[in-house]
Amino acid sequence: MIQQVTIVGLGLIGGSLGLALRRARAARVTGYSRKASTLREATRRRAIHEGTSDLRAAVRQADLVVLASPVDTIVPLARRVARLVRPGTVLTDVGSTKGGIVSALRRLPRGVAFVGAHPLAGSEQRGIGAIQPDLFRGSVCVLTPGPGTSARAVNRVTRLWRRVGARVVRLSPQAHDRILAGASHLPHLVAFVLARAASSRPLPAPRSLLDMTRVALSDADLWDDIFLSNRAGLGRAIRAFDRQWRLARRLLSVRRRAPLRRYLAQARRHRVALE
Amino acid sequence: MIQQVTIVGLGLIGGSLGLALRRARAARVTGYSRKASTLREATRRRAIHEGTSDLRAAVRQADLVVLASPVDTIVPLARRVARLVRPGTVLTDVGSTKGGIVSALRRLPRGVAFVGAHPLAGSEQRGIGAIQPDLFRGSVCVLTPGPGTSARAVNRVTRLWRRVGARVVRLSPQAHDRILAGASHLPHLVAFVLARAASSRPLPAPRSLLDMTRVALSDADLWDDIFLSNRAGLGRAIRAFDRQWRLARRLLSVRRRAPLRRYLAQARRHRVALE
Repeated sequence: MIQQVTIVGLGLIGGSLGLALRRARAARVTGYSRKASTLREATRRRAIHEGTSDLRAAVRQADLVVLASPVDTIVPLARRVARLVRPGTVLTDVGSTKGGIVSALRRLPRGVAFVGAHPLAGSEQRGIGAIQPDLFRGSVCVLTPGPGTSARAVNRVTRLWRRVGARVVRLSPQAHDRILAGASHLPHLVAFVLARAASSRPLPAPRSLLDMTRVALSDADLWDDIFLSNRAGLGRAIRAFDRQWRLARRLLSVRRRAPLRRYLAQARRHRVALE
Repeated sequence: MIQQVTIVGLGLIGGSLGLALRRARAARVTGYSRKASTLREATRRRAIHEGTSDLRAAVRQADLVVLASPVDTIVPLARRVARLVRPGTVLTDVGSTKGGIVSALRRLPRGVAFVGAHPLAGSEQRGIGAIQPDLFRGSVCVLTPGPGTSARAVNRVTRLWRRVGARVVRLSPQAHDRILAGASHLPHLVAFVLARAASSRPLPAPRSLLDMTRVALSDADLWDDIFLSNRAGLGRAIRAFDRQWRLARRLLSVRRRAPLRRYLAQARRHRVALE
């Protein structure tokens, strides 16, 4: 049993985690946010037991600190937190890319462990106003421990995510970033591109277009970091899309129906296999 | 009031139209299909009053014939039907592209009018098994009459779609094809391309990826025709997407956060404006 969990950053992921932990009576939950209004709202919605804007006070008694802030803030925040916690405290995160974060946090003060994590949940919404107690139920949380990460630390983070209904999968940071590039980062990029290129005026937008661009409602200042922090993985996924895009253009330009139909039929089989 | 409507092709669109017309008691509905099993199912589900696989028998008493078959079959079918109907009968269709069809059907036997139409409804499903009585409620149906189309014929088709809950909008065939390319044909093409390029194994596919590729479950042998029959419109939309795709790749390769964020933020504004 984890006694005391501190969640640093009370957005959709951090706030929903607190809500789920409190409902499961899995831990005492302290929340950290710079904004007093966020702390008030998180307390009112029972996402945290208590909150503070004092980082030292937030983490000094924690058994587990969950860094639930945007990708580019995780490394500096983890380094600050690591100097404030008791020995034995475990740090983990929820960042959408893992290679850079895990590599930068390999060395922390003695007795402090970091376990990279990425719960595959969320939506195009963000903030404490969007939190959901069942966000992680039935979801997958990927852990990316390094060779030097203690089993005790990995187990503590594993228990956390299982308590809120997630299935825990372990991958290397590199495998995580490669897989997520093809499963999430490329689709998000394509949604942003399509949102700029498509239009329906003066007709109403069809449901297909709305569904395909829904994640372009995600915040630009979360996704610029995710894209830039997964250079290798996203680069590979982009090249794969580009090959398929050029092939489709070529098949359309030669105007022969049979190869175009085979291309589309294979796309359909790929899509069926995704479910 | 339209006395007698014949629907040629009892798939998702034709079958749902019959169902909606019968529920609204708007007309006597005759269905034509080559397949006896489709006719039986359409009758059982009350999508038609009676059905036949004899095209002449299906259309000879019709006031209005709705050609609800795949895009590439509409022109030859309309020419056959035009020789079988009484003078005064109006022909219309439900094809997703309009320029080629309207142009090919400009001249029909004396007394027979053709009014191009495209109900903006449907899904990745198809066939009589997927029909829905409310498919057109709250939707838009585009009519593309030419300068020579009689007002009487346009009014008859307008009344048909209004009776099943659609709002009727008139556009030129060229404007229809240009708008639909950006609103529907390009998004479908991108979904097929993405379905071939994306992958999530061994992790489950995120909802974002499933939503973005859902329409790649559509049938290849409907969409190859739609793509090939809207060369000008789709070509323009493809070039627009390609410009945005190249710009995104360039912004990612130079790795500067501010312009990338502006690109994504503008995509978000475009998406908000789509709703």
